[in-house]
Amino acid sequence: MILKVKRASICGTDLHIYRWDEWISQSMGIPRIIGHEVAGEIVELGKNVKGYKRGDIVSVETHFVCHTCAACRKGFFKVCYNMKILGIDLDGAFAEYVKVPAFNLWKNEIDLPEEVLSIKEPFGNAVDTVLTEDVSGKSVLITGAGPLGMMAILLAKHSGAYPVFVSEVKDYRINKAKELGADYVINPLKEDLYEIIMEKTKGEGVDALLEMSGNEKALEEGLKCTAPNGRVSLLGLFEGKVNVDLNNLIILKNLRVYGITGREMFSTWYKIDKLLESGLELKKVITHSFKMEEINKAMELMEKGECGKISLIPF
Amino acid sequence: MILKVKRASICGTDLHIYRWDEWISQSMGIPRIIGHEVAGEIVELGKNVKGYKRGDIVSVETHFVCHTCAACRKGFFKVCYNMKILGIDLDGAFAEYVKVPAFNLWKNEIDLPEEVLSIKEPFGNAVDTVLTEDVSGKSVLITGAGPLGMMAILLAKHSGAYPVFVSEVKDYRINKAKELGADYVINPLKEDLYEIIMEKTKGEGVDALLEMSGNEKALEEGLKCTAPNGRVSLLGLFEGKVNVDLNNLIILKNLRVYGITGREMFSTWYKIDKLLESGLELKKVITHSFKMEEINKAMELMEKGECGKISLIPF
Amino acid sequence: MILKVKRASICGTDLHIYRWDEWISQSMGIPRIIGHEVAGEIVELGKNVKGYKRGDIVSVETHFVCHTCAACRKGFFKVCYNMKILGIDLDGAFAEYVKVPAFNLWKNEIDLPEEVLSIKEPFGNAVDTVLTEDVSGKSVLITGAGPLGMMAILLAKHSGAYPVFVSEVKDYRINKAKELGADYVINPLKEDLYEIIMEKTKGEGVDALLEMSGNEKALEEGLKCTAPNGRVSLLGLFEGKVNVDLNNLIILKNLRVYGITGREMFSTWYKIDKLLESGLELKKVITHSFKMEEINKAMELMEKGECGKISLIPF
Amino acid sequence: MILKVKRASICGTDLHIYRWDEWISQSMGIPRIIGHEVAGEIVELGKNVKGYKRGDIVSVETHFVCHTCAACRKGFFKVCYNMKILGIDLDGAFAEYVKVPAFNLWKNEIDLPEEVLSIKEPFGNAVDTVLTEDVSGKSVLITGAGPLGMMAILLAKHSGAYPVFVSEVKDYRINKAKELGADYVINPLKEDLYEIIMEKTKGEGVDALLEMSGNEKALEEGLKCTAPNGRVSLLGLFEGKVNVDLNNLIILKNLRVYGITGREMFSTWYKIDKLLESGLELKKVITHSFKMEEINKAMELMEKGECGKISLIPF
Repeated sequence: MILKVKRASICGTDLHIYRWDEWISQSMGIPRIIGHEVAGEIVELGKNVKGYKRGDIVSVETHFVCHTCAACRKGFFKVCYNMKILGIDLDGAFAEYVKVPAFNLWKNEIDLPEEVLSIKEPFGNAVDTVLTEDVSGKSVLITGAGPLGMMAILLAKHSGAYPVFVSEVKDYRINKAKELGADYVINPLKEDLYEIIMEKTKGEGVDALLEMSGNEKALEEGLKCTAPNGRVSLLGLFEGKVNVDLNNLIILKNLRVYGITGREMFSTWYKIDKLLESGLELKKVITHSFKMEEINKAMELMEKGECGKISLIPF
Repeated sequence: MILKVKRASICGTDLHIYRWDEWISQSMGIPRIIGHEVAGEIVELGKNVKGYKRGDIVSVETHFVCHTCAACRKGFFKVCYNMKILGIDLDGAFAEYVKVPAFNLWKNEIDLPEEVLSIKEPFGNAVDTVLTEDVSGKSVLITGAGPLGMMAILLAKHSGAYPVFVSEVKDYRINKAKELGADYVINPLKEDLYEIIMEKTKGEGVDALLEMSGNEKALEEGLKCTAPNGRVSLLGLFEGKVNVDLNNLIILKNLRVYGITGREMFSTWYKIDKLLESGLELKKVITHSFKMEEINKAMELMEKGECGKISLIPF
Repeated sequence: MILKVKRASICGTDLHIYRWDEWISQSMGIPRIIGHEVAGEIVELGKNVKGYKRGDIVSVETHFVCHTCAACRKGFFKVCYNMKILGIDLDGAFAEYVKVPAFNLWKNEIDLPEEVLSIKEPFGNAVDTVLTEDVSGKSVLITGAGPLGMMAILLAKHSGAYPVFVSEVKDYRINKAKELGADYVINPLKEDLYEIIMEKTKGEGVDALLEMSGNEKALEEGLKCTAPNGRVSLLGLFEGKVNVDLNNLIILKNLRVYGITGREMFSTWYKIDKLLESGLELKKVITHSFKMEEINKAMELMEKGECGKISLIPF
Repeated sequence: MILKVKRASICGTDLHIYRWDEWISQSMGIPRIIGHEVAGEIVELGKNVKGYKRGDIVSVETHFVCHTCAACRKGFFKVCYNMKILGIDLDGAFAEYVKVPAFNLWKNEIDLPEEVLSIKEPFGNAVDTVLTEDVSGKSVLITGAGPLGMMAILLAKHSGAYPVFVSEVKDYRINKAKELGADYVINPLKEDLYEIIMEKTKGEGVDALLEMSGNEKALEEGLKCTAPNGRVSLLGLFEGKVNVDLNNLIILKNLRVYGITGREMFSTWYKIDKLLESGLELKKVITHSFKMEEINKAMELMEKGECGKISLIPF
């Protein structure tokens, strides 16, 4: 299918590419058109494709799967052994047009602004992180209030979690976290995260830790604050290996730790539409919009951490 | 521990006792002081009891457990083999004073009206019914908007379920269900429940059925409306055996069906406090208050179904 | 793909067709070549099919799925909304050749007799029934020792369940159940099933009930014998609706009941190969082989219940 | 309750105490009678204790719990906030007599040698590690074939896992692992663990990793060998912090990692009796018996790793 790009948005991975750091330079080849968070209009249909027509406005699942490996055969598309990623392995969406398989389209039937449609994809990661296990009536700690942390705050509150603690060091994000409804936003450089959480949870610790920062220190602090028998979901990617006190912080606490990658295809997408339709205001995490040719300016803003999601308006 | 009763409330079981129907007359002996939903003030402490003092306002878990059977040894107190139920097997709470084991007390540390404290116990049943599995971003059908159905509506909405469908035949409850925030309230005697749900869920059916009515027809209709691979929680007690099309409505749909009794002791109580503290307005399901000596009037109202929870003010 | 049939086997559904009873006559049209449990040799490849070649010996997953409905999009192929069943909706395998989609093939790489290859499919149902939850170190009751009950016995024992109780009324099957390693085989018409199970489980009841009989009385007895908080998997299809004491046997016992249909595609198939390779002697449930033209004789044997799986040798 | 010690056995923790290394010297005070794996005869009953009598032969759950913290109130005794450990926080079992709460006794009703009774406790850890999730029909890798790894091999095989891979570097344990029925025992210093596992699992990796070694390198190798969406149970305690590639080995593989401490109280004990009664030959992991006064000799053997469990015969 060929889509005319209507809106795109910038992922943390795109920032790695912009910096061209060691990790990303080993993970992809160049030249490459980057960008994978996108909403587009179908301008050309694939052969034998049913259920779509020209003019449909669609979001895109970034993970292109093989349908024949063991993971795909089991319906675990999310971990396809032969996955190709849009904007990494194939030319992406920071362009006028982008080509995607019909399987990866998500038809948008509810009325939402186009800028929201392009961030359904990253929101899916936040959904799988927050909802790996039930959060209603449970306390959570979200470490890191970047764009995905912000989404997690919205979703945790929407899903009945309480209290929702957030740890974050940057002022812009601290303010945003408060605005999005976090119950307690703590700057661990200035306050004692562990003390505050233990006090507010009457010495129990949080039922769930949602690690969205990719920061080793945040992970360590977060694990300390997690109640025995608690749940941990790891989404943030770290800079290289991480030093963890597995004995005291995971094993002897009998924790369950989930690595989260991508989104359940497409269970999570079905949830997303219900969440948005029922009033979760995802738009609030989009703090800036730029024209696509201004992408360098957008990247600089991301570097500083003074933004939520940045939306890109095509040429 | 001896409690001075501050507030009590009426359970559906108490109505069975009032009617003295076949089921209940075979399940308990008389004479008996009935009533088990209660908030009280500690007036006498048990021996060696720590963590409580005279004057504490407590809620009560109704299920008194043995601590030595296989279920208790496994920490599954909820299904203790030797359970005694307050107001059924032992004298209950529609009285000035009531005696309960220290293990069954729940200390109230958040500021809530006393009438709410006595309905934490039945709310626990609703919590276990709604949250047997995660509901955020999922569609649910609640069959029956009696007092516990009303609680389920509040909780499902609070936990991010969408849409929340309710089927109910009585006008009073239909109106109450709408007021409590249900997305669609359907009278199956007047409208086609299946058609409406299939239309609103794009032919999928609901992700979860929460059966709170104890009505055979409601169960059958509810199962028809449940999506394949969906979840069913059964709380409502039926009048005798139930005729079910297990083949087409459960087996061939690959459903998961959970029988729900009581509340998880005390996991659910911990959730309840967090839910109430985060703004779930449980008070809304209390529609009437009576003096305890007016209990017959209260029972008649319950018979008609023209009420939510009824709170009783002690002598 | 076109397969030359090497072996087929008879399913309970085929017996319904043979009898042409009410249920089946409403579920399928005629004329129709029946039969869906099959192992065959690929004689003609589909277009663009990779990973298979002429001469490969394959088993067949009977459920043909649409890949585009909500269930398929979620990877829940087992409950595809538009499923077509081989030998019911499409011409089947009691024939010289049979046509199936490449997606539904299962390549056989371990060395097994062809007669075993054709019963991997029904074995998958037994696998999903037994292993809906873990059975190792747990007691189970299998109600019904027909061909699938026999498979369940083998698998439960292979997976560390203990004790494995079996209830069965027919002598042939009682003997077979013993031969397959069941710890206690009880004829509920002659012995008191409940008493025996309560005695052997020290008053607890079984951790899991595996209902393979489709018999209302067996289900009721089985539920009585299940421990509170226990697990029930329902595979057997009943004759019409079933009368169940939901209150006392499911709700107040806090049971989890799973309807089981088909096999997880293809998670279960991966398990099957590991189970067979590690020595589970599935061959033991094949008690008879007939030439395909003798199918009526085979059906009569099945009617009497004096057999396990019957294998059919093609023309 | 006062028990006369009939048999004891040596835990890895006792070896830490023998060495008096940094970790243990910070975790406990002295003087202390050590030892916590024990079978004894009741010689003095506690007050009001029912269900036991003098002369009963009992095993002992080492974790003494408070019954009043949040974890205990939830039935999660295993992670009691105020846990006291026999032989660490209180005088232990390498003695003539030992004192334990009635709650911590496990009555032995099946006929087993006394030396097996004292190792039910550590076997419980192996049970929770292996059976955190179902293993039947699944491949597992056990890293480390010390006493608990040996138990894990027995249990994985007993529960239908296949293939059961073991990685181990010491010859004694390699031979023992083979003897206990492991399908493939690999010395990663001499062979390429990853290559072998990928070949035998057709490129998928193992469904579950059971980490019993507490060795950083073994963990890393094990995670590499684990299939995407796979399960990891961590039992082995590491020497200090561990350096882990969370990104590539856990997060991007979407793994579930469970920290395992102690045993489920007492769900796991119920399983243990069923497992032993059904023929799991736990005795095979006891490779040596010493008189209690020869404990130093026993410790030296453990240091060398040339043993399985060592049983101690009291004075």
